[in-house]
Amino acid sequence: MREIAIIGIGQTAVGEHWEKSIRELAGEAVISAMHDARRESVDGLFIGNMLSGVLNRQESLGAMIADWAGLKHIEAFKVDAACGSGAAALRLAIMAVGSGEMDSAIALGIEKMTETKGPDTTSALAEAADADYETPHGLSFVAINALVMRRYMYEYGWKHTDFAPFSINAHANAIHNPYARLHEAITEKDYQRSRMVAEPINLLDASPIGDGAAALLVVAADQIYPRNGRGRPLVTIAGSAANTDTLAVHDRRDPIWLAAAETSAARAYTQAGVRPEDIDVFELHDAFSIMTALSLEACGFAERGQAPRLGLEGAIFPGGQIPICTLGGLKARGHPVGATGVYQLVEVVQQLRGEAGTIQIDDARIGMAQNIGGSGATIITHILKVK
Amino acid sequence: MREIAIIGIGQTAVGEHWEKSIRELAGEAVISAMHDARRESVDGLFIGNMLSGVLNRQESLGAMIADWAGLKHIEAFKVDAACGSGAAALRLAIMAVGSGEMDSAIALGIEKMTETKGPDTTSALAEAADADYETPHGLSFVAINALVMRRYMYEYGWKHTDFAPFSINAHANAIHNPYARLHEAITEKDYQRSRMVAEPINLLDASPIGDGAAALLVVAADQIYPRNGRGRPLVTIAGSAANTDTLAVHDRRDPIWLAAAETSAARAYTQAGVRPEDIDVFELHDAFSIMTALSLEACGFAERGQAPRLGLEGAIFPGGQIPICTLGGLKARGHPVGATGVYQLVEVVQQLRGEAGTIQIDDARIGMAQNIGGSGATIITHILKVK
Repeated sequence: MREIAIIGIGQTAVGEHWEKSIRELAGEAVISAMHDARRESVDGLFIGNMLSGVLNRQESLGAMIADWAGLKHIEAFKVDAACGSGAAALRLAIMAVGSGEMDSAIALGIEKMTETKGPDTTSALAEAADADYETPHGLSFVAINALVMRRYMYEYGWKHTDFAPFSINAHANAIHNPYARLHEAITEKDYQRSRMVAEPINLLDASPIGDGAAALLVVAADQIYPRNGRGRPLVTIAGSAANTDTLAVHDRRDPIWLAAAETSAARAYTQAGVRPEDIDVFELHDAFSIMTALSLEACGFAERGQAPRLGLEGAIFPGGQIPICTLGGLKARGHPVGATGVYQLVEVVQQLRGEAGTIQIDDARIGMAQNIGGSGATIITHILKVK
Repeated sequence: MREIAIIGIGQTAVGEHWEKSIRELAGEAVISAMHDARRESVDGLFIGNMLSGVLNRQESLGAMIADWAGLKHIEAFKVDAACGSGAAALRLAIMAVGSGEMDSAIALGIEKMTETKGPDTTSALAEAADADYETPHGLSFVAINALVMRRYMYEYGWKHTDFAPFSINAHANAIHNPYARLHEAITEKDYQRSRMVAEPINLLDASPIGDGAAALLVVAADQIYPRNGRGRPLVTIAGSAANTDTLAVHDRRDPIWLAAAETSAARAYTQAGVRPEDIDVFELHDAFSIMTALSLEACGFAERGQAPRLGLEGAIFPGGQIPICTLGGLKARGHPVGATGVYQLVEVVQQLRGEAGTIQIDDARIGMAQNIGGSGATIITHILKVK
């Protein structure tokens, strides 16, 4: 397949954008990515979005957003993989450009969740779980994750406080990210005293939802014009893989192991020719703090059941062995569900270009992003490199 | 790009499947396509679906259906382009295999519409239109098409009865298709007397919705095993193109011209090296009879404003110059919206293999399918050939 580079990034702040519609938010991110790449046209648009049908009562996002962003008449589709929709959009853009059907494409993530024309957001988010075998039992999405966290703590003997560093790190980093939803440092005491959501998950274990859009402009590396570079490092896609598991957690051989994370990460490592210790920055899917632990283990950064140690020992903080959530993660940048996967990738590009500001990771040259749909049902891993 | 062949097809009857869930319907079509291809595994699954979020309250279809169909751990996503979702799934499968990321993939279309856990179906279908500029004015999807039909009749001077042959042909052909929803011939008198839905569109201008699933198994032509052939003709994808237009009809330069059909058909003709007169069978998107007329014109089978003549002169019937809706079309096979595009392609394969039974088109070697999302917002054209 042709080598593919990311030459443009764009994002809106994550928040409550009462005054902006889906098309306006999406258009901002798309146009911003095109400005960043100094391109005025693109061949295709792939849109990661989960909830537009149920909350915004709008489908056909492809045609709508292409037109609004000044890209009328291009090929454009929406893709859904629940909270993994964002990275799914990049998978499609990669295959579109890789196949030669297109020379350039935008992977956009967009979600608008603060208003609903349908059911409440918690009920809508439950669509990421199994509507035949999980939700009818009254399980919300956070409740499913709470069962997983409880089992993990029971199996490996961790206390709830042992997960605090994950959230503390995310909040500390988000302060320096102008696009983040939360700009508020937290302490271990804040974490311990936080309001319970679904035991043992409290408010500071859980990521906040939000409205937001982020975009990546990818091109075949042989199509890069000198002016796209602007003298900054060129970021290429060195590894890209997606994998699925059962939708319902109870169907899995091991409910506290992310098999699809292990497989997709292993494939991405092989494609990129790297090992876990080569990764300079890792944007992982910390929708809940238990997911941080499971993702770190499945990707080979910690032994099974030992990920909380990486937090307690400081390895995940900027300057540590494996800095994670460097621009706030889902926990503090915010989690506009279908857009999140693209935010993660935009942030890895910021780090690899040296554009991450105060929380720039020194000499970051290889970055990884992992996006999760459902409670581990769809997992997509990307590895980016400075060329 | 690698040459791609369709080596497996599967479909369920279109109807009211009260006793079957989404996963069961989808599984039947997927497994049937795998049996047809004599394959036991496949690398990826792309699912065309429009309404699972709003009606069935289930997203994450990729992981769910892959698991149910015995394909756990493969890459699997859902794609939406409203009623064009089915052919969009094939576009993604083509790019996935064409890029070399996969050697084989299934394009599945699935829709379950007879039950709803959300709003009524007419309200859900309005999500294919513009939720900011069309639906707030009380326009249902059929009402938008009615405005287009009325304008077309006014501009070109056709009477409502002049559209009758389109529906008569579809109903006559569906009688011989065991998977069709309606098995009932209609006369011109039936058409004239039919109950009005949104003037001038009456019940016999409009396609019935339904539950249904259809699947295509595609492979890189260099990956075909001799046993996949079973001595039957090999069907390859000779042309494949998608295009978008504005979502709202009022935004278009000409509301009675399908620009995205013209462009995607032109590109597909060029790729396949054929002209309209070379097409032996054309499965078009007759969601409403006006769409039949507009599709025939945009694809070059009739002069602007003259398509009803093809019906009145018999050219669209089996044995005519350009047989359409040979297995019933949306009008009589039925229109399970996100699945329809795959049904059309399955039917073209049936014709090209010589497996269309009573309504086999003699010596069919080149077939075309055109799938439309929204009122012409996303249009996808495929040309298939017997190799």
